[in-house]
Amino acid sequence: MPPIITLTTDFGLQDEYVGVVKGILAARAPQAQVIDLCHAVAPHDIAQAGFVLQAATPYFPAGTIHLAVVDPGVGTRRALLIVQASGHYFVAPDNGLLTYFLAEPRFQSAIFIDCADLYLQPLSATFHGRDILAPVAAALANGTALSSLGVPALKENLTKLVSPALQIDRIRGNMAGSVIHIDHFGNLTTNIHQRDLAGLADDPASIQIFHKNQQMTGLASAYASRADNQVLALIGSRGYLELAAAKGNAAEILGAKAGDPVQVIRKNDA
Amino acid sequence: MPPIITLTTDFGLQDEYVGVVKGILAARAPQAQVIDLCHAVAPHDIAQAGFVLQAATPYFPAGTIHLAVVDPGVGTRRALLIVQASGHYFVAPDNGLLTYFLAEPRFQSAIFIDCADLYLQPLSATFHGRDILAPVAAALANGTALSSLGVPALKENLTKLVSPALQIDRIRGNMAGSVIHIDHFGNLTTNIHQRDLAGLADDPASIQIFHKNQQMTGLASAYASRADNQVLALIGSRGYLELAAAKGNAAEILGAKAGDPVQVIRKNDA
Amino acid sequence: MPPIITLTTDFGLQDEYVGVVKGILAARAPQAQVIDLCHAVAPHDIAQAGFVLQAATPYFPAGTIHLAVVDPGVGTRRALLIVQASGHYFVAPDNGLLTYFLAEPRFQSAIFIDCADLYLQPLSATFHGRDILAPVAAALANGTALSSLGVPALKENLTKLVSPALQIDRIRGNMAGSVIHIDHFGNLTTNIHQRDLAGLADDPASIQIFHKNQQMTGLASAYASRADNQVLALIGSRGYLELAAAKGNAAEILGAKAGDPVQVIRKNDA
Repeated sequence: MPPIITLTTDFGLQDEYVGVVKGILAARAPQAQVIDLCHAVAPHDIAQAGFVLQAATPYFPAGTIHLAVVDPGVGTRRALLIVQASGHYFVAPDNGLLTYFLAEPRFQSAIFIDCADLYLQPLSATFHGRDILAPVAAALANGTALSSLGVPALKENLTKLVSPALQIDRIRGNMAGSVIHIDHFGNLTTNIHQRDLAGLADDPASIQIFHKNQQMTGLASAYASRADNQVLALIGSRGYLELAAAKGNAAEILGAKAGDPVQVIRKNDA
Repeated sequence: MPPIITLTTDFGLQDEYVGVVKGILAARAPQAQVIDLCHAVAPHDIAQAGFVLQAATPYFPAGTIHLAVVDPGVGTRRALLIVQASGHYFVAPDNGLLTYFLAEPRFQSAIFIDCADLYLQPLSATFHGRDILAPVAAALANGTALSSLGVPALKENLTKLVSPALQIDRIRGNMAGSVIHIDHFGNLTTNIHQRDLAGLADDPASIQIFHKNQQMTGLASAYASRADNQVLALIGSRGYLELAAAKGNAAEILGAKAGDPVQVIRKNDA
Repeated sequence: MPPIITLTTDFGLQDEYVGVVKGILAARAPQAQVIDLCHAVAPHDIAQAGFVLQAATPYFPAGTIHLAVVDPGVGTRRALLIVQASGHYFVAPDNGLLTYFLAEPRFQSAIFIDCADLYLQPLSATFHGRDILAPVAAALANGTALSSLGVPALKENLTKLVSPALQIDRIRGNMAGSVIHIDHFGNLTTNIHQRDLAGLADDPASIQIFHKNQQMTGLASAYASRADNQVLALIGSRGYLELAAAKGNAAEILGAKAGDPVQVIRKNDA
């Protein structure tokens, strides 16, 4: 299988920026298959890029190289990283974008990128995704060893983001979480994972979910299991509790935004 | 030639959804060439997806696999299909998206998808484009026989959408149709095909076209054959009567929307 | 290395238009690697397409084929071109889109496209990017000689756009230029190149930059070298003087638009 390089950025599709990164990759690793994950990360939104990346990674084979560029500190002394986890490679700035992969059990290693002979020259002050990270991703696709691309980094020393808190009452099973992403359909992904609900909801109808004053009873089995535009809760395709509306836009119907609190209450307690 | 897989969805480009589908395809059919047709279908707009797909199909070689996912019924008991027509394969839900291909003379066969050993596990309730349809498209790209992927379906039993009516006065040649698509430029595609105009318009100047109270005389030979921002009618690149404006946005100028009536009148009758 | 074909258009991503062009390329030159540069050029904005293309070209290897379609004159008698410059091929209408490449020292040759046996039939009146230019780009990718694709054109006879004026006071070093592009981040690219600043700014702090009444002192070394949302000037990744704001949108903060005047003043003169 040819190597796969995925791209996650806040570049948008309005300029030639993504195309130029692909030009570098095509010139240096023409055998690689380049796949856009997302270029619509809100400008400078490091956490959103990390979320998209961790949601996508399980669907790519081991060995995939994930190039992720949300880099408001470009041109300052912030470091650039390669992180190896779950058999995947992640190439990104050391700004918290890779928090999830540093924390996960299958974390393997990290290096600070340091291989100036590979960089584009002259190096710009504003586009290291093009000048440094794309050449490094191409080198990985060509089988270059990590040890040739930089120096070992202790994960304890790397930048991490603090995730929105999820509070779980382990006795009653009630939870207080929040909306962490709103997708193209207006579906709201929360930070409550189906694992968190496992003990609680042998009977999925035994819980109530609240967004502000809106109450949703039980977990739906499908979007279309309720009437059109009725809000509902279910386990979304990312594995998290999701608020949605059949053929409707739940974010608009609920007036919801990222960060909004979401509560799960056992019915006996409601 | 490597197999081609096209993608038509209502996923948008804001999330990792399209990228994840491509990850499945790259892992299972790395030799396939994947081409985005359109991910900007309005959420849940099955008819629009069908329109885009039938407009694009003639420009792809026989053997192309078209994966089309607008699937508001995901997770319910709606079936998933492979339809073979004109030597192409179409992989989509049984919700009317493939109406055009079921009706066309070169329809060949249809199956209900049933090959659980290929699906991603665990199967989500909300993303069968990723969990079922992408693996099936990859299997087709790998040369898997239709008979291994499901059970024969009678096209009479499959879901069809009713197209907007086109009324043709066969004696006078006048027509009452409608706008079926508005494109990025604001050009209005109607459901009046150039074939419908063939008998009528030996002299393309002999007809008048009406959108609401706006009258356009004759068929233009090119957008720029009229003054800037003047609305005009011509045969668009999809083969249908199109209303446009040189260097302008006809939809804005006309205040038009999909579904608006469009009339063609022989000049003698105007 | 497989041949590379880049795409720059005003087609947007709302319709199947880009996908259809890729279908033609995949059928006729399946070995080519197709890379989207930009499909968000404003409808009919020939100058913007030329800007994006010249900004991207340096990051692609010699031999790359650049297909650029902004073609308001489609269907009229305007010519279609292949221009060879810097070892790259450019396939586009003769409407000024390729002005930069005609003017540059490494211009090599130009031909008027004339190879009707390659065109799609029937030829539409409205989509020659699909019917003519894509087949021609595919032929170039297959190694077809320029002499088989058309007839020589004198660059003196080809359409050029007039660039926004840049006035330089060669004695004092002051400059009066303008904003030529606003990117996805709200950064403003000007027509003042770092070469123009070379003599002036041995000490980058010795200059002041003005947009309307807003004054920026010196050239910043990075976006994040100033406080969030403070406007600053630096050399952008395209090599031009750029106005930006750390983690902010300079276009919004400044109320700026393309065409706005930008001045560079030596500090002694300010």
